[in-house]
Amino acid sequence: MTTNRLEAFSDGVLAIVITIMVLELKAPHEVTLKSLIPEIPVFASYLFSFIYIGIYWNNHHHLFQAAQKVNGKILWANLHLLFWLSLIPFTTSWLGENHLSATPVALYGFNLLMSAVAYFILQSYILKHHGKDFVLKKAIGRDLKGKLSVVLYIVGLFLSFLSTWIAVVLYAVVAIIWLIPDKRIERNLE
Amino acid sequence: MTTNRLEAFSDGVLAIVITIMVLELKAPHEVTLKSLIPEIPVFASYLFSFIYIGIYWNNHHHLFQAAQKVNGKILWANLHLLFWLSLIPFTTSWLGENHLSATPVALYGFNLLMSAVAYFILQSYILKHHGKDFVLKKAIGRDLKGKLSVVLYIVGLFLSFLSTWIAVVLYAVVAIIWLIPDKRIERNLE
Amino acid sequence: MTTNRLEAFSDGVLAIVITIMVLELKAPHEVTLKSLIPEIPVFASYLFSFIYIGIYWNNHHHLFQAAQKVNGKILWANLHLLFWLSLIPFTTSWLGENHLSATPVALYGFNLLMSAVAYFILQSYILKHHGKDFVLKKAIGRDLKGKLSVVLYIVGLFLSFLSTWIAVVLYAVVAIIWLIPDKRIERNLE
Amino acid sequence: MTTNRLEAFSDGVLAIVITIMVLELKAPHEVTLKSLIPEIPVFASYLFSFIYIGIYWNNHHHLFQAAQKVNGKILWANLHLLFWLSLIPFTTSWLGENHLSATPVALYGFNLLMSAVAYFILQSYILKHHGKDFVLKKAIGRDLKGKLSVVLYIVGLFLSFLSTWIAVVLYAVVAIIWLIPDKRIERNLE
Repeated sequence: MTTNRLEAFSDGVLAIVITIMVLELKAPHEVTLKSLIPEIPVFASYLFSFIYIGIYWNNHHHLFQAAQKVNGKILWANLHLLFWLSLIPFTTSWLGENHLSATPVALYGFNLLMSAVAYFILQSYILKHHGKDFVLKKAIGRDLKGKLSVVLYIVGLFLSFLSTWIAVVLYAVVAIIWLIPDKRIERNLE
Repeated sequence: MTTNRLEAFSDGVLAIVITIMVLELKAPHEVTLKSLIPEIPVFASYLFSFIYIGIYWNNHHHLFQAAQKVNGKILWANLHLLFWLSLIPFTTSWLGENHLSATPVALYGFNLLMSAVAYFILQSYILKHHGKDFVLKKAIGRDLKGKLSVVLYIVGLFLSFLSTWIAVVLYAVVAIIWLIPDKRIERNLE
Repeated sequence: MTTNRLEAFSDGVLAIVITIMVLELKAPHEVTLKSLIPEIPVFASYLFSFIYIGIYWNNHHHLFQAAQKVNGKILWANLHLLFWLSLIPFTTSWLGENHLSATPVALYGFNLLMSAVAYFILQSYILKHHGKDFVLKKAIGRDLKGKLSVVLYIVGLFLSFLSTWIAVVLYAVVAIIWLIPDKRIERNLE
Repeated sequence: MTTNRLEAFSDGVLAIVITIMVLELKAPHEVTLKSLIPEIPVFASYLFSFIYIGIYWNNHHHLFQAAQKVNGKILWANLHLLFWLSLIPFTTSWLGENHLSATPVALYGFNLLMSAVAYFILQSYILKHHGKDFVLKKAIGRDLKGKLSVVLYIVGLFLSFLSTWIAVVLYAVVAIIWLIPDKRIERNLE
C-alpha cells in the first residue's frame, strides 16, 4: 500500500486543526487598539499551538518522505496521532481563556505528551515495516530528541502546579528543539 | 476515469467530519479538573465517533487501493456514503449532550446503519464495474462482516429503547469487528 | 500548467462547503423524536444543497478529467465559481430557518443561477484554451443542459414571489437534469 | 524533497481560510430583502478577503509550479505565510462588523503587509535553493510588484487614521496589481 492517501488525509486534518483555532479569536465589539488587549492571551496560545502543529506537520512530512509503504497498523497509529493533535484546539482554548492557570497548563502538557507518544509509536511501526537498510533508521538513531521531549513534557506537566511559567518554558524548549526539522532525515535522503 | 479525485474529495470531507466534532468540546469557564467532568460524555462520544470515522476512512482507503477506475454511479454512491457520515457530528452531539438517552442512541444507530448500507452499495458498484478476476472479489467473499454489521445495528437500534447500554455495546462490537482493516484486501493485493 | 492544484484546491473548498452546512443542524435539548421536527426544514435544505454541491463536484470532476492544462484566466474563473458555491451554506441556512418564504427562496435561486453562470464561464475558458479536437467540445455540443438550467433558474427566481413551491420544484428539476453526470464526457473520454 | 505535500497542505489551509469567512454571514431572522442590508459590509469584506486569498493562492500556485524542490527552511517560510493568511478571517470580521473604522482598517492593512512580507521571504528562500538558471529568477526580476505592494500597504496602514477610504483604495490597488497572476512565470515556464 502506498503512502499517498495517508499523507493527504493527515494534511487535511492538520490543515483544519491549525485553522479552526483561529475561530477562538473573536473580533471585539469596540474599535480601539485597547479592545484587542483581552485577545492577547488567546492570540499567544494560538501562535504557540500553530507552531506546535507546524512542527508535527514538518516531522510527519519528513517521516513519510522517507517511508515507502504502509500497512493497517501504521494507518491506525497515524489516526491515533491525529486524534491527540485534534484535541489541541480544545486544550489551547482552555489555556487561552484562563491566563495560564495551573490545570489548563497541565492538561495542555498532557496533550503534548500524548501527541509525542503517539508520534513515537507511529515512527516505530514505520521502522518495523521497513527493511534493515531503511534510511530512517540511521537518521533517527537512538532518538534522543524524542526521548528528551517526553521527559520534558512529564516534568513540565507536574511542575505546572508549582509554577505555570516554568511549565510553559519547558514546553517552549521542546518546541525549539524540534523547530529545526530532522536535518538528519534530509541529509540521509540525499 | 481515475480514482484520484474521488479519493482526495473523500479525504477532505472525512478530515472535516472527524475534526469538527471536536468543536463540541467547549472549554469550561472554571480552571479545576472537576470542571472537566461534564465534558466527559461529550469527550466519550467524540472518541467513539472518531474511531468510527477512522474505520470508514481505513476501509475506504483499502477499497480504493484495489479499485482502478470509477464511473458516474460510483461517484454518486460515494457521495451518498459521505452524506451519512457527514451527519455523524450531529447525531454524536445529540448523544453527547444527553448521557445516553434512548432516542439519541437509536438515531445514532440509525446513522451508523445507513452509513453501513451506503458503504455496501458503494462496494457493490465497484465490484460490478471491475472484471471477474478483480482482487477485491476474492478479498470480500460473501462479506460476512458487512452483513453481520447491518444485523447488529438494526438489533441495537431497536434495543436502545429497552436498554441504551446494550445498544452501545452492540455498536462497539461492530467497531471492534472492523477495527482491524480488511487484512484480506492487503493480503490479496500482495 | 497542470490541473493538479486547481483540482486539489477545489476539492478542499467543496469538501468544506458541503460539510459546514451540517453545523446548522443543532442537536435539540430534549430527547424525544418530536423534538427533531423543527430540524426537518433545516435537514431538508441541507440535503438539497448537499445534492447541489455534489452535482457541481461531479461535473467539475468530469470537466477536469478532460482538461489537460490551465492558464491564469481559468484559475480565476474557477475561483469565481467557488465563490458563488461558498455562499450556498449562507443562503441554505436562510432558507432552512424560514420554511420557504419568498425572499430566501429567490435569493437561493439567485445563488444557483450565479453558480451556473460561473460554471458556464469556466467551461468556455477551458474550451478556448484547448485545441479544435478537444474531447470536451464534442461532449458538450450546444450545451442545451447548461442553457436550460439558466432559464429555469431565472423563471424560478421570479416565480418564487408568486409561489415558493413552484420555484423549489423548478430548482429540483434542474438538479434532476444534472444528477446524471455528463455521460457524454465519459463516453467521449473512452 | 518534493513539493507535493507542501502544496497539498497549503491548499488545505487556504481552502479553509477562504471558506470559514462565510460563517460570519449570519442568516437574518426576518425574510425581507431589507433585512439583508446590515449584512452588506460583512459581505463586502468577505468578497474583498476572498479575492485577496485567491490572489495568494494563485501566486503560490505559480511559485510552486516553477519550484522543483524544497528544504526545511522553505517549509517554515511557507508555514509563516499561512499563519498570517490564517488571521485574515479574524481581521476581516473586525472590519466587516465596524463599517470601516480606523483601527480595524489599519489592522487589516498590517495583516496584508505581514502576508506580503512572508510571501517575499518564501520566494527568496526558493530562489536561494534553486540554481542560477532557475526559471523563476528571470520571471521575478527585480520584483517591482512585490516592493510596490509593501510600500502601498505601509502608506495605507498609516493613512487609515486620516481617512479609511484612502486606505481601502490603496489596498484595492495592490489587489488589482496582483489580480493578473504572474504572466511572467507562465511565459517563462513555456
